[in-house]
Amino acid sequence: MKTAQRILITALDIFNQQGENNVSSVEIAMELDISPGNLYYHFKGKEVIVAALFDLYQEQLRAILDAPSKQSDTSLNIEDFFYYLYLIIEKNHLFRFLYRNPTDLTDKYPSVAKGFIKLMAAQERCVTELLAKFVTQSTITASAAQCNQMVEIIGLVFSQAGNYYALKGNDINDDEYLYKSLSAILFALLPYINIEPGELHHLQEAIVNRGFSHDE
Amino acid sequence: MKTAQRILITALDIFNQQGENNVSSVEIAMELDISPGNLYYHFKGKEVIVAALFDLYQEQLRAILDAPSKQSDTSLNIEDFFYYLYLIIEKNHLFRFLYRNPTDLTDKYPSVAKGFIKLMAAQERCVTELLAKFVTQSTITASAAQCNQMVEIIGLVFSQAGNYYALKGNDINDDEYLYKSLSAILFALLPYINIEPGELHHLQEAIVNRGFSHDE
Repeated sequence: MKTAQRILITALDIFNQQGENNVSSVEIAMELDISPGNLYYHFKGKEVIVAALFDLYQEQLRAILDAPSKQSDTSLNIEDFFYYLYLIIEKNHLFRFLYRNPTDLTDKYPSVAKGFIKLMAAQERCVTELLAKFVTQSTITASAAQCNQMVEIIGLVFSQAGNYYALKGNDINDDEYLYKSLSAILFALLPYINIEPGELHHLQEAIVNRGFSHDE
Repeated sequence: MKTAQRILITALDIFNQQGENNVSSVEIAMELDISPGNLYYHFKGKEVIVAALFDLYQEQLRAILDAPSKQSDTSLNIEDFFYYLYLIIEKNHLFRFLYRNPTDLTDKYPSVAKGFIKLMAAQERCVTELLAKFVTQSTITASAAQCNQMVEIIGLVFSQAGNYYALKGNDINDDEYLYKSLSAILFALLPYINIEPGELHHLQEAIVNRGFSHDE
């Protein structure tokens, strides 16, 4: 693996564990067993590393967000939708240092702040469009105002569930985090979803076992 | 007002605006137009100010949490419940610097971390008990698992809605914040609440206008 890549992967890992604010570029170099000068040759300071990680996150999240619109427009099913939500939650969790301390991070890095506003808007737009399709095909029965509330709750879970569990002192692992996040979203949406008991059971099983049919 | 009180009020205000991490005790003294020595006479360092603010928050929140159990046990109504949620959201918002950067804050102040775990548990217990009473009197129809999910969503909104709106770049004022938080909770609970259309309309009006009947 190239040094630049190794630096990013290591920085992401340490930022996630300790918070971006508590880690210096010298510490990243030490963790990699390279000299601060070598690190500086690749990234001119921590700001550049944070910006590069945000770009990487942005690129990977946008690839997920764009996927449904590229699919052929046959009828959507709810399990596909939850698999899609699962991919987003998983991606946000992979780059969770970005959500750990959002106010300070965006104050410190204006370019990240701007990028975040666009990315959050893109994410909301994608979820809104998918919900609208479900309404059209009667998979979901809800008014536009109700769909907006679903989008808000999904966005809240996407971005803040990790902080909430941390504050409660819950030392949950990645799997539990994904499960709890998806379960909260399913709970909020379920009264509006027209789903057969058998289908619902299958979806719940898929959430519990993180075993979506797409994983095959 | 006594100097110690003035220090706490000013510190709370600056912490809320700029984040606890970005403010030194010297800056708090400057804002108050007192010498750092005078501030130090009252509070031996920023840690002591943060601990005192957390104690104040804890005391005030516990007073709200304890209120329903002290009331006579006549039937609860949903509007009272939402007024209760409103008081909690308002209190959390008043001390919002505590929620701004929870991971770093609790890493830095172990006593706050411990206090938070207990306080969040107390908050969840109170909401759980109220929901259970509603189920008993058939105001809410939900299983224990569904009530647990409601408690999770309420807790998530209580603690993290502010960070979420900030990340979206929404520059919302305190009133909008309270309104959006209560609306999200109402949305999640509504399918389980047995409520007359007239009563629902009244509750929605109360949320929009922040005009609960208790305000009289």
